[in-house]
Amino acid sequence: MKKIRVGIIGAGGYGGCGAIELLTNHPGAEIAVLVDTQEVGRPISEIYPHLTGFCDLVIKSPEDPHIPADLDVVFFATPDGVGQKAAPSWIQKGAKVVDYSGDFRFNDPGTYEGYAFRIGRTQQHSSPELLPYSVYGLAELHREEIRKTNLVGNPGCFAVSCILGLAPAVAENIIEPDSIICDAKTGVSGAGKNPKPAWHFPARYETMNAYKISGHQHVFEIERELSRLAGRAITITFTPHAIPLCRGILSTIYGELKNGQSIKTIEEAYRSFYKEDRFVRVFGPDKPQMSIYMRGTNFCNISINLDERTNKLIVVSLIDNLVKGQAGSAVQNMNLMCGIDETEGLMHPGIFP
Amino acid sequence: MKKIRVGIIGAGGYGGCGAIELLTNHPGAEIAVLVDTQEVGRPISEIYPHLTGFCDLVIKSPEDPHIPADLDVVFFATPDGVGQKAAPSWIQKGAKVVDYSGDFRFNDPGTYEGYAFRIGRTQQHSSPELLPYSVYGLAELHREEIRKTNLVGNPGCFAVSCILGLAPAVAENIIEPDSIICDAKTGVSGAGKNPKPAWHFPARYETMNAYKISGHQHVFEIERELSRLAGRAITITFTPHAIPLCRGILSTIYGELKNGQSIKTIEEAYRSFYKEDRFVRVFGPDKPQMSIYMRGTNFCNISINLDERTNKLIVVSLIDNLVKGQAGSAVQNMNLMCGIDETEGLMHPGIFP
Amino acid sequence: MKKIRVGIIGAGGYGGCGAIELLTNHPGAEIAVLVDTQEVGRPISEIYPHLTGFCDLVIKSPEDPHIPADLDVVFFATPDGVGQKAAPSWIQKGAKVVDYSGDFRFNDPGTYEGYAFRIGRTQQHSSPELLPYSVYGLAELHREEIRKTNLVGNPGCFAVSCILGLAPAVAENIIEPDSIICDAKTGVSGAGKNPKPAWHFPARYETMNAYKISGHQHVFEIERELSRLAGRAITITFTPHAIPLCRGILSTIYGELKNGQSIKTIEEAYRSFYKEDRFVRVFGPDKPQMSIYMRGTNFCNISINLDERTNKLIVVSLIDNLVKGQAGSAVQNMNLMCGIDETEGLMHPGIFP
Amino acid sequence: MKKIRVGIIGAGGYGGCGAIELLTNHPGAEIAVLVDTQEVGRPISEIYPHLTGFCDLVIKSPEDPHIPADLDVVFFATPDGVGQKAAPSWIQKGAKVVDYSGDFRFNDPGTYEGYAFRIGRTQQHSSPELLPYSVYGLAELHREEIRKTNLVGNPGCFAVSCILGLAPAVAENIIEPDSIICDAKTGVSGAGKNPKPAWHFPARYETMNAYKISGHQHVFEIERELSRLAGRAITITFTPHAIPLCRGILSTIYGELKNGQSIKTIEEAYRSFYKEDRFVRVFGPDKPQMSIYMRGTNFCNISINLDERTNKLIVVSLIDNLVKGQAGSAVQNMNLMCGIDETEGLMHPGIFP
Repeated sequence: MKKIRVGIIGAGGYGGCGAIELLTNHPGAEIAVLVDTQEVGRPISEIYPHLTGFCDLVIKSPEDPHIPADLDVVFFATPDGVGQKAAPSWIQKGAKVVDYSGDFRFNDPGTYEGYAFRIGRTQQHSSPELLPYSVYGLAELHREEIRKTNLVGNPGCFAVSCILGLAPAVAENIIEPDSIICDAKTGVSGAGKNPKPAWHFPARYETMNAYKISGHQHVFEIERELSRLAGRAITITFTPHAIPLCRGILSTIYGELKNGQSIKTIEEAYRSFYKEDRFVRVFGPDKPQMSIYMRGTNFCNISINLDERTNKLIVVSLIDNLVKGQAGSAVQNMNLMCGIDETEGLMHPGIFP
Repeated sequence: MKKIRVGIIGAGGYGGCGAIELLTNHPGAEIAVLVDTQEVGRPISEIYPHLTGFCDLVIKSPEDPHIPADLDVVFFATPDGVGQKAAPSWIQKGAKVVDYSGDFRFNDPGTYEGYAFRIGRTQQHSSPELLPYSVYGLAELHREEIRKTNLVGNPGCFAVSCILGLAPAVAENIIEPDSIICDAKTGVSGAGKNPKPAWHFPARYETMNAYKISGHQHVFEIERELSRLAGRAITITFTPHAIPLCRGILSTIYGELKNGQSIKTIEEAYRSFYKEDRFVRVFGPDKPQMSIYMRGTNFCNISINLDERTNKLIVVSLIDNLVKGQAGSAVQNMNLMCGIDETEGLMHPGIFP
Repeated sequence: MKKIRVGIIGAGGYGGCGAIELLTNHPGAEIAVLVDTQEVGRPISEIYPHLTGFCDLVIKSPEDPHIPADLDVVFFATPDGVGQKAAPSWIQKGAKVVDYSGDFRFNDPGTYEGYAFRIGRTQQHSSPELLPYSVYGLAELHREEIRKTNLVGNPGCFAVSCILGLAPAVAENIIEPDSIICDAKTGVSGAGKNPKPAWHFPARYETMNAYKISGHQHVFEIERELSRLAGRAITITFTPHAIPLCRGILSTIYGELKNGQSIKTIEEAYRSFYKEDRFVRVFGPDKPQMSIYMRGTNFCNISINLDERTNKLIVVSLIDNLVKGQAGSAVQNMNLMCGIDETEGLMHPGIFP
Repeated sequence: MKKIRVGIIGAGGYGGCGAIELLTNHPGAEIAVLVDTQEVGRPISEIYPHLTGFCDLVIKSPEDPHIPADLDVVFFATPDGVGQKAAPSWIQKGAKVVDYSGDFRFNDPGTYEGYAFRIGRTQQHSSPELLPYSVYGLAELHREEIRKTNLVGNPGCFAVSCILGLAPAVAENIIEPDSIICDAKTGVSGAGKNPKPAWHFPARYETMNAYKISGHQHVFEIERELSRLAGRAITITFTPHAIPLCRGILSTIYGELKNGQSIKTIEEAYRSFYKEDRFVRVFGPDKPQMSIYMRGTNFCNISINLDERTNKLIVVSLIDNLVKGQAGSAVQNMNLMCGIDETEGLMHPGIFP
């Protein structure tokens, strides 16, 4: 079978690197071109030496006339604002587009602006006409729409973790929708490749901190998805924390239990909700989970717990922020958009320790 | 002035080591004897080589007849169950006792048993007659009682962090007392010196996890102290997490705001509540705090935040679990019990990075 | 094609886990049975939860009568002394054996005893009759012998790194053979799965140390292999160091240059020596290498440098100690012994960061 | 007694911060002014929040007219090139100067240029007239000269570790001077405060690498000091490595033993050489040392070992690169220059873990 030809815009960042790692092991896809505004002219394997012999393509500038026009899929592993400008031309050429940023996570300009405000972005969306057709790229909730679209807004890493942890509880009316608190902890790789004081090894290796308290931009998409599931507007409390490890998001999620819920019925509701989802694994309170078991994989492990003294559901939801939280979801979406097995190139256990 | 003569029972653990480090720099105290059941006969500086030249005392067995009887203060840096057996004889000899475990944190056998059940301890308390006289060793809440007692139950590390983060909010009626959620993150040193699979470097360096969900034993003392402050029974939700760093507890605390509270009035209430407390520092939302700034020090930094969208107070409370959460509080209590300046031997900034 | 049926003895350690990870992705092999003396009766995926859904076999006792007899390959991922007792019966049943320990790295009892003395082992070898037939499992030096044997002694992790870093220099007469110093640095995973004080996270995360100075047991096999290549006895100085990371060995190797060597001729000699070796990559001084680029892979990267002021060759040789230094070499040896492509199941780039 | 008034130029870097930490606990000194070209106008305790309440001085620009002129000591915690311009005016005002950079480590322009070339510095020295009067600030070798000078060139961190590890062996003719190899490992804090790709947490936490092989600038001062001790020119091989920890240098030093040396005589020679030196501790092979035992302290621990098979002395020399390797030596030099006890403000054991 002809392989899916993939172009990666923003190849030099961690998100691009993650896609390359997955696609070099993907039996049905091949990387056709790598594009970035930095490191143009250098082989990607000089920037990421572990790719030597696996992908030695030279990075092209976005303006390079030799970028092939016949790509099947284009990944925009780029910051907010890039994909919304360049996606239309790729879609016109017949490519399917997966954008990692918030550019295509919302279906109307008004909602997008609410999001954009949080990240300090004041420009209007460049391609508002595409927004109604874009699909939110969380396969567990939008599989059929993703299969039919040619434009996916890949979800935010925190959003993947929190939405998957909460979806059954909200959809099945297990908790009070106004009581939700998400206390999220992320490894440092979520901040990307560029060195900054907060991620400088000596300043980070032995510290943790909360940040953007009540102000993180991923809150918007979490609330939008939960509201869809609940059939009413939901507002949540969300606090992200930076933790001195590389890969992993652990979200501890609290919600007020509605009457008549037992741990048994809740576990069943979760398992039933995710029964088609190969990358979501549900565990009871006797099987506590750790973030390292997700490292390098596309899985989301969800642990269900009750606090009977205070009548709370406590869900612990874990992913690798760079895989299920980014490049892995992108490949999963590509697979769906291209009509091949959703798990292709993604089914491996990772390594321990 | 004659120096306070201190004996440390359980000298070989991290809690004992922490006390030694502080006391070697304490102008008004001297270490008279080190006792432990392990490593008997070895100089402490062989076990902790950084102490070479600062404290080279040889560890004595608890049965050693040469343990001096004229100690002014005895630290029990020992697990639950040790201090409650040996404390009475030291008190009879005239010593003041600070016990690190839960043995003397509660004032009646019934409450103690609730705590003991959580740690799997089924024996009755060995010295129930002492319980009514013991004082909970959190100086910020019990300074005057500590000054007058000869028996202190040093608080649990999570409890220090959560109680200090919540006390003003509960005492000043800022939040709904039944809405409290404490999401706590701790470094690995809190688990002590003994190697276990969960703390093995390869299994820990790149992972995080929630544990003892709704079942941690420190909940009891947190609820007891908050209930005292509120004048009514308070139940909280508490989830501890293990984080791959060495020292530090960061507790993110959520509570439903009562009417009419602004960030300004709350900050003022916190500052006012702690106006006598040299080791508590209160910060507004514009000064986010990190755990490393507490490392090696006796400080507790508290950051006050509001989520106006969901009407929540979000407090971030940070300590070094081995200092303010353990040995530092013990020395602070010793200073108070002996009538010297509470901050003696404890006023240094730590090191960065 | 019929898949190679593999049994793993000692499945519960890091070496067994590493083999399982590689074999679940190996298109030509399947895991038939897992054996260990600990955790008998538990699914391996309870011990290593990342294997859930990939390998859920239950661990069998070595005495279990249901261990299948028709294995094609048996891995002894066991400590010294285990394989030498059990290997003969498996060989009699027609299985090929790869032993991870030092049991079959030497071809006569006398040499073995020199090694055994270093690890404090005083018993005689249980199967001295097998020693002449065993092959040292470093494919880059013994490929053809491995293809023909049914018994391989998998090399020690430090030995892989040092021998590969030195082999061309010794074979091609580039350095004075009596001048060799190997200064090796290893991640903590090399110490295995069992928690010990030196590997306890708080005691390790911020420390490094030399150990077994001039006394490490891997020195024997390094000297034996180098002596073979040189055609004369070689003695080396070797110092291992423990470093606070999980995976990786970096060996810095110093040797006195013989006359007339330039960086260019030395690089050519190295490239020529390894021209058939897919897992060895040679780099010049302008391409410094880091251990993380080997993580999770079977590669050995070798960086060649000269110090012209002191007339020294300085080679930096890097591997992942658990892959090329252990399970990866074992699978590579299995591939050779079974007549399939040496790289099967081993060709992936790893992940970064 | 009047306190020594200290000004710190370059206060905002790790070297400045280290001096502030030490001086806030120094009974005989006080910080009079903090100067930097960055963060001017901000309190130092905003940049380093752990200093809150200990040092809240506002950073002044070097051009600020309110910098007091009556300083007793000025620390230049600045990069190469700064101190050599500004030191003369401070010396004219009567201040004593300690410069952290290479600016005053050499006594003539020619030698300085050899050093400067290595760091890519092409300008001539700004104050060549001062070079003959500057003293190399390693108290263990130059105590009396430091006492008498008003200008000290504080030594490089690697140099402190290697020179202290080698001085007795070279001075007492224990090893062949032309055989010396120093394999040094450093924590990341040695690279300073500015974030760079190589020190970005995700790119560093699980990696190690050799760098500047045979080309590190500290080689010059090591060779100069060893040559002085030997009475003849010595050239060494030196390889630095970056290790994923924060504080610590461990240098493993190899030298060919001269005839008739036993471990006993060598240990005695080392102890005798350092008998006046409170910050150097010598250990035999039975007391292996780890870098964490030096963390936060001014000590250098030296472990002496022999490899009898290859006739080598193997010395392991350990320091905290930011204390004995930088700010601690600076304070030690200040104490000597000001005629007070060399150990003032420096005698504490650090913390563990």
